Amino acid sequence: MRGKVYLVGAGFGGPEHLTLKALRVLEAAEVVLHDRLVHPGVLALAKGEKVFVGKEGYGERTSQEAITERLVALAREGKMVARLKGGDPMVFGRGGEEALALKRAGIPFEVVPGVTSAVGALSALGFPLTFRGLSRSFAVATGHDPRLPLPLADTLVLLMPLHALEGLKERLLERFPPDTPLALLARVGWPGEEVRLGRVRDLPGLGAGLPSPVLLVVGEVVGLYEELR
Amino acid sequence: MRGKVYLVGAGFGGPEHLTLKALRVLEAAEVVLHDRLVHPGVLALAKGEKVFVGKEGYGERTSQEAITERLVALAREGKMVARLKGGDPMVFGRGGEEALALKRAGIPFEVVPGVTSAVGALSALGFPLTFRGLSRSFAVATGHDPRLPLPLADTLVLLMPLHALEGLKERLLERFPPDTPLALLARVGWPGEEVRLGRVRDLPGLGAGLPSPVLLVVGEVVGLYEELR
Repeated sequence: MRGKVYLVGAGFGGPEHLTLKALRVLEAAEVVLHDRLVHPGVLALAKGEKVFVGKEGYGERTSQEAITERLVALAREGKMVARLKGGDPMVFGRGGEEALALKRAGIPFEVVPGVTSAVGALSALGFPLTFRGLSRSFAVATGHDPRLPLPLADTLVLLMPLHALEGLKERLLERFPPDTPLALLARVGWPGEEVRLGRVRDLPGLGAGLPSPVLLVVGEVVGLYEELR
Repeated sequence: MRGKVYLVGAGFGGPEHLTLKALRVLEAAEVVLHDRLVHPGVLALAKGEKVFVGKEGYGERTSQEAITERLVALAREGKMVARLKGGDPMVFGRGGEEALALKRAGIPFEVVPGVTSAVGALSALGFPLTFRGLSRSFAVATGHDPRLPLPLADTLVLLMPLHALEGLKERLLERFPPDTPLALLARVGWPGEEVRLGRVRDLPGLGAGLPSPVLLVVGEVVGLYEELR
């Protein structure tokens, strides 16, 4: 038998947001390599061997290489491998890097999309990402490094902004008026879920004490949420 | 029994990208109101009455009002209603408008996220939306009106660009060099799927004869796809 690697998106939150294809692959995989942000309810659906390969802050690069080496080695043993990532594998998940490494090693692979938290967590709570007359576009970026330029769109979603809220406030004020509505969404779909509403000017204080992971949403559509929730 | 409306994302392409929650709601709903872009394989999973409410070009506004009136009326009859939309209900699907109308009418509702084609169709084909060193952000907008300003991000995804490619080329050249890689993705996950690769300068000719619906992707990550596919 020839091995194959599936880069599988676990979606956000619990197993209810998993796709039918992701479930099928998870149930059939002989080995599942997973990250820290995959919900235990999703992992429980996997029937094969589970290997935690979450990366810690140090030695990140070495660790990423170790993961791709392991994927290649398992596939060469003829194994069906699921590489399970939170959200969608091709959105801030290094899925592209792993896919490229597999391709270069000659290993067959397939990407199984998932519901990215950048869209799905907002949607599930009732935040429209677009709305006629208020938002014609949305953009997604990571928020962990406030020195990076922000994308420009009517609705802006930033992942992992919690430790950079002060710098992000400065960046956001280059793009949005200070009274633009903003929301911080913590742990959507997990125990401890919390939504805080405010304005750009309310940063960084608005984020005080929130548990990770957090999404930051800025734009006029956030004002609609106050009515919709 | 009290009625309730579920705004359900059907995802893109066939039923394999449906989430477990969307499947559960579809199977339980007494009435399913659906759009044109929902795959027949997804509709086949619905067990209740199916009502097509796709909008045509003319009289669009009246039609949207008629849909929300119907949702409200069915819920007031005590029905469990699924309002099924391609992709995610809160991304260019008017899900926000329908949610607001339901809220104002006092009808209980819930949003069930789906895999939006703007992310999932790219991911399934092997396009990374982000990639270390090449793309730190992505933005999504509709491409049908080239007079509208485009969002600004490393990777740009435009929905429904096919009839505006000439105008979009001008807009894109304000943001990207003419040799920036670009892809047109037609009918991903449907019969007739087609991917065309080129550069910004190859518009509008690159789109000649493509079947709808089409996604346009611009950015350096498109160059990776040539290696990854």
